[in-house]
Amino acid sequence: MPEMRQDPVTGSWVIIATERSKRPHDFILPVEQKKGGSCVFCYGNEDKTPPEVLAWRPGGGKPHTPGWTVRAFPNKFPAVTPEGDPNPRKTGINRRMEAVGTHEVIVDCPDHLETLGRVTDEQAGLAMLAIAERYKVLSRDPRCKYIQVFKNYGLTAGASLEHSHWQIITLPVVPEVFIKEFAGVRRYFESNGTCIYCRIISDEIAVNQRIVETTDEFVVLTPYASRFPYEMWILPRRHQHDFGNIAGNDAKSLGSIIRRTVRRLERAFNYPPFNIVLHTGPPGKGYETFHWHLEILPRLSVAAGFEWGTGIFINSTSPELAAAALRPMNPDIRRD
Amino acid sequence: MPEMRQDPVTGSWVIIATERSKRPHDFILPVEQKKGGSCVFCYGNEDKTPPEVLAWRPGGGKPHTPGWTVRAFPNKFPAVTPEGDPNPRKTGINRRMEAVGTHEVIVDCPDHLETLGRVTDEQAGLAMLAIAERYKVLSRDPRCKYIQVFKNYGLTAGASLEHSHWQIITLPVVPEVFIKEFAGVRRYFESNGTCIYCRIISDEIAVNQRIVETTDEFVVLTPYASRFPYEMWILPRRHQHDFGNIAGNDAKSLGSIIRRTVRRLERAFNYPPFNIVLHTGPPGKGYETFHWHLEILPRLSVAAGFEWGTGIFINSTSPELAAAALRPMNPDIRRD
Repeated sequence: MPEMRQDPVTGSWVIIATERSKRPHDFILPVEQKKGGSCVFCYGNEDKTPPEVLAWRPGGGKPHTPGWTVRAFPNKFPAVTPEGDPNPRKTGINRRMEAVGTHEVIVDCPDHLETLGRVTDEQAGLAMLAIAERYKVLSRDPRCKYIQVFKNYGLTAGASLEHSHWQIITLPVVPEVFIKEFAGVRRYFESNGTCIYCRIISDEIAVNQRIVETTDEFVVLTPYASRFPYEMWILPRRHQHDFGNIAGNDAKSLGSIIRRTVRRLERAFNYPPFNIVLHTGPPGKGYETFHWHLEILPRLSVAAGFEWGTGIFINSTSPELAAAALRPMNPDIRRD
Repeated sequence: MPEMRQDPVTGSWVIIATERSKRPHDFILPVEQKKGGSCVFCYGNEDKTPPEVLAWRPGGGKPHTPGWTVRAFPNKFPAVTPEGDPNPRKTGINRRMEAVGTHEVIVDCPDHLETLGRVTDEQAGLAMLAIAERYKVLSRDPRCKYIQVFKNYGLTAGASLEHSHWQIITLPVVPEVFIKEFAGVRRYFESNGTCIYCRIISDEIAVNQRIVETTDEFVVLTPYASRFPYEMWILPRRHQHDFGNIAGNDAKSLGSIIRRTVRRLERAFNYPPFNIVLHTGPPGKGYETFHWHLEILPRLSVAAGFEWGTGIFINSTSPELAAAALRPMNPDIRRD
């Protein structure tokens, strides 16, 4: 029997309809394979990107040369522009402003063919340390009201280049997904005096039906109202509202748990397309009740007319089944 | 220069970043071609679907036989179930209810290979008349709080079968997309005493930068804060809050203008994947300030990590450019 579930933070409904997974398909989603070769993110092509803003070369070496482990630079085709002021204005009922912000790329592995799930934990940790460092630098711009960190892997997840990378976009507005989530966080805090994500963590560990992995620092779980089949969230166990405050060692541990979680997905579904998105309190005061976390969104299904029309996602895999399938995927096995 | 624009109804921001369209792609979206053949929606396979709830056979004929022009039946793999009551309940902080509702399919053309843009206006009108009739029947169920009418065309738009069809899903809750839109409608009405969609229609006709087509009854435009490249809305010029009140002749005219609009898209982009979603006031009182309309969402781009994380869409085609490209596509040319 299909069931509706409500996200306890946002109030968004989903439909968990496991029978839908048996319907026939005229189409089969193409399996994506990396074509390989050399790209602008590869060693030797450093002059083809905008000037790097961060690069770690353990053996030394000049900027814009090979030998780096992680490398960050502005996106050559940015969605936002670093120059000027937002200058909000109105024509009739229509409001607009300049899309002022910074759009950066962090190449998290030198090897074109490598995937996030297969790199060493050290490499994944260094990449997250680089992201945290760029986050801290970018958050100092007073025009910046929010910073979105994300990763797209695979064509149907919106990646235009196949070489593994993360992206950071800073925004002159606080975006609506955060506003909605934070409204739920505040509502719960006002009634209960505690953080709803801390409550989710303790409830989920107690119920133990949707836990994928726990470490001393993080919990990986399939959320109760999962929108996407095999959706997973990674939450720090200790309450922290602002990703920008993360300590270096915690960033490294985060990189490692992200790698392990992605590896489970790679092993379960043969390198499916996915997005990873950071949800964090924005720079500035007043968001202390928030609890930053990451969402891993496998793109095994397609948001269609019903989802765009209603905002309600139809998910053919229950999060309990998803967690049971992902738990046994040993992330320490790095080769297929 | 990338620009942020705010939807005047919902307050949602988008980024219009036309330079993004020049970025390189390792991937190319596959062109989808219909495979053809006979499917469960074709003549002769009427016994392979659940029993029909509506069918028009101009030459007469028994139920579950060929000869129909439009045919509706319950979805064999429904996302909701017609039996029982929602029975909302709570475990800890988690709410759930049974997904009680009706999920129907309307096959809008007998020919497997035909597309919505190429059928006759009469055929397109009959299909919309059938949808309006089913809408009216389904809205009488007191458990029904909202009815979502939608069409998915193409694999990457979420269609699982290629034979042209529409779907209707009724819900035991008012969905969040409508709630957000209606909040904007009410806010505008309380300040101005008029409907914001009526204002959009008159403003857009006056400015004449985003109009694709107007008829005596409908306006087709590319919305000011388009989320998707070549997104189009179809609005009735006369204020009507509830699609369920549509007159038979208006439903036929609506079918015709939808066909014309889809035909422009087919001609401009060689049969791209798209969704069509109806936005309407739900059954019942209190929604008289709403103004129903249809959104046509071409799936030429992919919602990626940034969009899922923020709710802000990056659109590489301005709605002004989109309207200028779609206007000259003559929808009366039905063959390629």
